[in-house]
Amino acid sequence: MLNCSPDIREQIVATTALQPNQQYNRHSPLGAIVLTNGDVDHIAGLLTLREKQRFNIFATPAILEVLDQNPIFNVLDSEFVSRNAVELGDEIEVMPGLRIELFSVPGKVALYLEQDVSGGFSEAEVGRETEDTVGVKLHSAGDHRVAYYIPGCAMMTDTLHSRLQQSELVFFDGTVWHNEEMIDHGTGLKTGQRMGHMSMAGDAGSMCAFDDIDVKRKVYVHINNTNPVLIDGSQERKDVEQNGWTIAYDGMELAL
Amino acid sequence: MLNCSPDIREQIVATTALQPNQQYNRHSPLGAIVLTNGDVDHIAGLLTLREKQRFNIFATPAILEVLDQNPIFNVLDSEFVSRNAVELGDEIEVMPGLRIELFSVPGKVALYLEQDVSGGFSEAEVGRETEDTVGVKLHSAGDHRVAYYIPGCAMMTDTLHSRLQQSELVFFDGTVWHNEEMIDHGTGLKTGQRMGHMSMAGDAGSMCAFDDIDVKRKVYVHINNTNPVLIDGSQERKDVEQNGWTIAYDGMELAL
Repeated sequence: MLNCSPDIREQIVATTALQPNQQYNRHSPLGAIVLTNGDVDHIAGLLTLREKQRFNIFATPAILEVLDQNPIFNVLDSEFVSRNAVELGDEIEVMPGLRIELFSVPGKVALYLEQDVSGGFSEAEVGRETEDTVGVKLHSAGDHRVAYYIPGCAMMTDTLHSRLQQSELVFFDGTVWHNEEMIDHGTGLKTGQRMGHMSMAGDAGSMCAFDDIDVKRKVYVHINNTNPVLIDGSQERKDVEQNGWTIAYDGMELAL
Repeated sequence: MLNCSPDIREQIVATTALQPNQQYNRHSPLGAIVLTNGDVDHIAGLLTLREKQRFNIFATPAILEVLDQNPIFNVLDSEFVSRNAVELGDEIEVMPGLRIELFSVPGKVALYLEQDVSGGFSEAEVGRETEDTVGVKLHSAGDHRVAYYIPGCAMMTDTLHSRLQQSELVFFDGTVWHNEEMIDHGTGLKTGQRMGHMSMAGDAGSMCAFDDIDVKRKVYVHINNTNPVLIDGSQERKDVEQNGWTIAYDGMELAL
């Protein structure tokens, strides 16, 4: 989600717009929301933004289709909230001066949609690059510095490896520390891979994968509550920090 | 939502059940959930209960239909979460020893469903008694003491007035203090009535309506953040307390 302070505040009923100098006692700084996946942890937060304040949603057609198939999201009044389809590879402006491009990364379809995949869903489906799991390239108009936001990624590919070279900032999938983590903790029977996430640790992990990618700042996001990097002072936290990573936290602000 | 401590803890994958003496490191005390409305504030919380723990949902067919029409709720795995239709007036057991009956109260259809009502939606639609807004009668098997849970109610009717007489405990709609509250606060253009809620204050308010109903304990729930009774020490808080009401709070526990 992207923050901004919109100049124009909107009245709760579309037909009775407040004048710019009028006060409106509810306000959200959100101006644009870019969805990178259609699963519950990526879209359910929209339901708490139903106060008839103006913002724009951007996502691939496949992810927007998830919203369309669930009428509960109509609580986001279309008078205030636009849904904008973004094709993979297109570069568009989501807020004045801020441009994005969406690109597919290895992932999987939303958990609750697995059953709808024709012929059932198998382990082999994980890692497909589709419109269902995407990364975001972010940059300012006229600025060559680039940031990436990739909260879910099942594996590092050559294409992704090349893409991220010499970027200023990468937010990356930090779901699990190691692949069997949820099984070991007694909180699940699925591996990180099965959930569409590469681990931080290990030879096939993201720390190794980024070792020869030149990125100024690396920040782990989308961290599961079983991941020991969340514990201050843990060995795993030290390991990621020694490898040049930062653990994201609520309220974190970053400027390029 | 009803709390209980189930004796049997369930494994995350249905086909591999944990034995009763095994530890499972995620646990929710929720055993049964009774839905009284299909609007976002009543059903979106289900999306945070998607940890494959067993509980049972009870609601009218109309409210269950809202879940059915939104595939996002399929994240509640049907192996663990049952959806049970309860007809108005039927008495059923939702957990061992705890019985409920659902009854319609004056209300309105969910905000985001208003547009689907044939012929549009008008102020006149508010106050209809349908399966869309219901109250819950709760009692233990073999116990004549009765509690009611009614988080949304557009007006007091003679039927409801009679029903609540001599009950032990009533949780009641405390959305707004007065009807024009959201308009006065600059947070909305709808009256409490238009949202399907009767006010606390005033001649047509719930405090007056309960004045001649014999109820041992009266607790306001579903309180909007514009309602001044939420402010400790406010005159409105004093007024409700002087009228024998308690303001519900997170973590509140009550025993009959």
